[in-house]
Amino acid sequence: MQVIPPALERLINTLAGLPGIGEKTAMRLALTILRRPPAAALELAAALSALHTSIQLCSGCFTFSETDPCAVCADQRRDGGLICVVEQPADLLAIEKTGVYNGHYHILHGVLSPIDGIGPEEIKVRELIARIENGTAREILIATSSTVPGEATASYLIDRLQSKKVKLTRLACGIPMGMDIKYADKYTLAKAIESRGQATEKS
Amino acid sequence: MQVIPPALERLINTLAGLPGIGEKTAMRLALTILRRPPAAALELAAALSALHTSIQLCSGCFTFSETDPCAVCADQRRDGGLICVVEQPADLLAIEKTGVYNGHYHILHGVLSPIDGIGPEEIKVRELIARIENGTAREILIATSSTVPGEATASYLIDRLQSKKVKLTRLACGIPMGMDIKYADKYTLAKAIESRGQATEKS
Repeated sequence: MQVIPPALERLINTLAGLPGIGEKTAMRLALTILRRPPAAALELAAALSALHTSIQLCSGCFTFSETDPCAVCADQRRDGGLICVVEQPADLLAIEKTGVYNGHYHILHGVLSPIDGIGPEEIKVRELIARIENGTAREILIATSSTVPGEATASYLIDRLQSKKVKLTRLACGIPMGMDIKYADKYTLAKAIESRGQATEKS
Repeated sequence: MQVIPPALERLINTLAGLPGIGEKTAMRLALTILRRPPAAALELAAALSALHTSIQLCSGCFTFSETDPCAVCADQRRDGGLICVVEQPADLLAIEKTGVYNGHYHILHGVLSPIDGIGPEEIKVRELIARIENGTAREILIATSSTVPGEATASYLIDRLQSKKVKLTRLACGIPMGMDIKYADKYTLAKAIESRGQATEKS
């Protein structure tokens, strides 16, 4: 017997295809949407329909943007000589939130993952090299994640870029702010000890 | 500076209005949708748009259904004398999944919660009483959640219904299947001891 109405099942199945949303969460979301006024569902539908038509990739840094170049690349006050290489647009947003970065970005749109068939040609490595060769980049801050594929991608980039006339830098690795040292994992703690810096009154 | 494109921000804000989805999850979902082909976003949009137009409340049990009466109420093989009272359509789906229930349902669409201004008039209590008075109900299985508002609603229903000529029953409360007793909370364990039943070879 068909207990779940087909229209509801269709929404549940579509929602369950999103990352981190299993069948139970999808059902809970779909039932919530159903309980709310139709206008809320239609607003979400409209936002989804408009998404791809109004957003494209910036031709400079390859982030998602409604304009080309994007707001970051177009901003004359930012330092175009400093390029921060990140995996995804979400990383750009996280770094922008800190408010301490004033350079440009380069979005790889992925990490090297041979097991998934993702090599340098599948992510925006060639575009990064072209940008360095044809542009005015002075420093490349490699800000891939501190994960196995992130580190592998960083190593690959360092290998490819060390012949170029740019300074290559990495994000510092250490104890997160506010974390109790006894809860830090030993690898992070080891890294933090190795990378220890001069103590100042401020820190 | 507007780093997040407005179309993306609109989707993030709409998604963040759903239960259990915070700003970070909403951003992750929106960026995933953006990375995937437009067809996937449009399919989700279409499923959302179609939701309220094709689904209504069953006039018998008040569950969400594309037909009226719903598949359960319309099924002649089911026992119309047994009505299981649940809080939400999701509870009906959970009970149907067990495959052991063969009666009808009554969806309250909420629980009593005076602090939120939800009294008996805001949930489908009057409709339940009318169903009992005008129908052929023999047994009412009160299956509200084992939470404070769920228990309060059950107490209220028992109070209201005990003058009616129906048998009132509750779901059994005890140790979940497969759970180690040492991990059971003391209230559940106490309930399981109080409600202990005859041991059989099968159990």
